[in-house]
Amino acid sequence: MRAVVLRNKALTVENIEAPRPAAHQVLVTTIACGICGSDLHFVHHGERMAALSAEGSSGSSSASSSSASSTLDFSRNIVMGHEFVGRVEELGPDAYTSAKVGELVVSIPVMMTAVPPTDDSFRTIGYSNEFNGGYAEQMLLSGPLLLRVPNALSVEFAALTEPMAVGLHAVNKSGIVPGDAAVVHGCGPVGLAVIAALRLKGIETIIASDFSPKRRDLATVMGATQVIDTRTYDPMDALLEAVGRPGVRTAMIAGSGSGLVQFECVGVPGMINTSMKRAPRASAITVVGACMESDSIQPMFGISKELSVSFVLGYTPEEFAGSLRSIAEGEIDVAPLITGVVGLDDVATAFSDLANPELHAKILVRP
Amino acid sequence: MRAVVLRNKALTVENIEAPRPAAHQVLVTTIACGICGSDLHFVHHGERMAALSAEGSSGSSSASSSSASSTLDFSRNIVMGHEFVGRVEELGPDAYTSAKVGELVVSIPVMMTAVPPTDDSFRTIGYSNEFNGGYAEQMLLSGPLLLRVPNALSVEFAALTEPMAVGLHAVNKSGIVPGDAAVVHGCGPVGLAVIAALRLKGIETIIASDFSPKRRDLATVMGATQVIDTRTYDPMDALLEAVGRPGVRTAMIAGSGSGLVQFECVGVPGMINTSMKRAPRASAITVVGACMESDSIQPMFGISKELSVSFVLGYTPEEFAGSLRSIAEGEIDVAPLITGVVGLDDVATAFSDLANPELHAKILVRP
Repeated sequence: MRAVVLRNKALTVENIEAPRPAAHQVLVTTIACGICGSDLHFVHHGERMAALSAEGSSGSSSASSSSASSTLDFSRNIVMGHEFVGRVEELGPDAYTSAKVGELVVSIPVMMTAVPPTDDSFRTIGYSNEFNGGYAEQMLLSGPLLLRVPNALSVEFAALTEPMAVGLHAVNKSGIVPGDAAVVHGCGPVGLAVIAALRLKGIETIIASDFSPKRRDLATVMGATQVIDTRTYDPMDALLEAVGRPGVRTAMIAGSGSGLVQFECVGVPGMINTSMKRAPRASAITVVGACMESDSIQPMFGISKELSVSFVLGYTPEEFAGSLRSIAEGEIDVAPLITGVVGLDDVATAFSDLANPELHAKILVRP
Repeated sequence: MRAVVLRNKALTVENIEAPRPAAHQVLVTTIACGICGSDLHFVHHGERMAALSAEGSSGSSSASSSSASSTLDFSRNIVMGHEFVGRVEELGPDAYTSAKVGELVVSIPVMMTAVPPTDDSFRTIGYSNEFNGGYAEQMLLSGPLLLRVPNALSVEFAALTEPMAVGLHAVNKSGIVPGDAAVVHGCGPVGLAVIAALRLKGIETIIASDFSPKRRDLATVMGATQVIDTRTYDPMDALLEAVGRPGVRTAMIAGSGSGLVQFECVGVPGMINTSMKRAPRASAITVVGACMESDSIQPMFGISKELSVSFVLGYTPEEFAGSLRSIAEGEIDVAPLITGVVGLDDVATAFSDLANPELHAKILVRP
C-alpha cells in the first residue's frame, strides 16, 4: 500500500507492506486523516519529544499509553496520522466490535494488545514503528475501541473528532463553569477546539487572541465573544473591560462561577510566564499548547497570586465519543476549520503550507 | 522604643518613635516574634521581591493585601517581624475588639485601615514603612483582627501560630485527602509546618526529604512517616516502595484518596522542575517554598503527565485562628521547632545563625 513514510527526518511517499489484522484488530481503509501540528513538530523534533517523554516517565509510578514512544527508532519507518476516519475492510479474530465491513469508524489512536487490557497493553498508533497512522491507504485499529460514524455525518467532519476532543478535555479539566470567563491565547486548531468546547459548556465570556486575522475570524465563528490582535491589545485588558475594573471584581477563583481560566494554546516558550504575569489573583491557567522546549517562569508571580497551572493532554475515551456525538448533532460546527484536502503525494507540501496561518487551519489527507 | 531597623540593606538596633493607636488600632507590647526565612531574604533582596510582586499585580483585576509593597521605600526605616505575640497596652478609639489591656493576643500581620474594610483598606505589618513588625518593643495591631491567646498556652508557642498557619493553608489548598500520600521536599520551618498539617489532616504516608540530619529529625517529630536524605536516596523512589511499584498503583490523582501531592518547600530554582520530572501521572504539586528567582521548567513533563501545579501563599483568617486553636489544644506540638530565643541586640546574629540548618529551625525574638 502507499504511505507517507517518515524516516531520518524526511517524508517520502513509498509502497510499504499492507498490515494484516491479528486478534482484536480491524483492518480499515483510510478515508480521511487530519494533519496535526504535533506531526509537523515530530518530523524534526520527534527524537527530542520522545526523549523528554521518557525522561519524565522514568520512575513515575504509573504506566502511560505514550511509554512505548521511548522505544521509537527514527531510522525505521514511521507513518504518522492520528486524526483518522476509516472504512472497515476486514475483522481479525475476536475483534470485539459491532462495526461491520463497509461501515465508517473512528477511534482513539491507540492499539489495545490484550483484551481485557492491562497497563502494559496499550500502544500508540501513528507515532510508532509498529502501527501505522492515517497517512497510508490502510491501517489497523483496535476492535474494542471502534466508534461507528453516524450515517448522516460527513466523512470529513468525522475526521475532526480527535482534535475537537482535545478541546473538550481541556475545558473539562480546567474546572471552568458557566459564569466564569475564559481567555484563550492562540487560535490554531487547539485554541479553536477549546473555543468550541467553551461555547458548548455555556461560557458567555470567551476572549480569544491571535496575531492572524484569518484565525481571529475562525475564533469568532467557533464561538469567541471577543477577538484580540495580540500585537495591538492585551487580552487581559480586554478581560478587565468585559468583567470589570480592578477592585470591582475580586472573586476570580476558577470554578466559582465568577472566575477566570486562561487557556494557553500557543505552545511556545514564554507563554506560560506571560499568562502567570497578567493573571488575576487565585485564577487558573490551563496549558494545552505543547511547548517542547525548556521554558522560564517567575515562580513569584504564581506564589504572590496563588495561581494554579494545570497541564492537559489528550482526552478520555468518553470525551472522544462525546466529541463525535457533538459534531454529528451539529452542536459543534467543524466545517469552517477544514481549509484544505490533499492526497498522499501532497502531504509534504501541506506540512509547509500549514506554517501560514492565513492559509490554513486544518488540512485533511485523503489517501 | 528600641527596634531592629532595616534601612539600605543593613540591620541596626535603634531608638525610634513609639507608635500611638489611631481609630480601630490597638497598641501592644511585643512579647515574642519568630524570625521567618522570608525576612532573611528580604534584607538583601527586598527591592526585587517588591518589584516582582508589583510586576505580577499590574493590571491584574484584583487588589491584594500585598499591593502596598510596591510603594516600599528601602532607604527609609522598615521594622520586620510578622510572627508575633503581643500584650495589649492601649486601645485606640473604636477598637472593635473584646481583648482587654494586659491580655495576650496574636493577629494576622495586616492592618485594616477602615471598618468595614474595602479592597483598598488592608496594609502589611512588618514589610512596611508605615506599620512596624515584631522586632520592636511595641507595635500597632488592628482591633478587629485580634485573637486572644488562651490562658494555658505558652507565649512562645503562640508565636508559632503564623508559620503553622502557612502549613495548614498549603495542605488545605492542595486538595489532599486521607488515603493520599504526600512527599515533602525540604524540612525548613515551612516544610515542617506542612508536615504537621498533613498529620493533623490524617495523611498516613508522609515522606519528607532534606539534606540536614537535624531537620530530618524534626520532620520525624512533626509527623513524617519516613525521612530521606536527598543526597543518597530519591524521595520518589521511597514513595514507590511505600505505595507500590510502577503499574501496581495507577491512580495517583490527588484528592482521590489514592493519589499523591508533592509539597515543594525548598524554594530554590530547579525544584519545581525536579518535582515535575519525577511526578507520577495526573498527580499534583503544591509550591509553598518561595523561589524569588527566575526558574526553568520543561513544560513537556507537565503536559505528558497532565500534572497540576498550584502555588500557595499565606492563609485565610480562619486558618490562622485554626492554627492557634490546634497549638493551644496540643494537636500540633510546636515545642521542638523553637531552637533559640534572642533579644533585639542579637537579631542580626540570629539571622546569620539561621543559615545553618544543623543549629536552628525557629528562633524567637523577645524584645
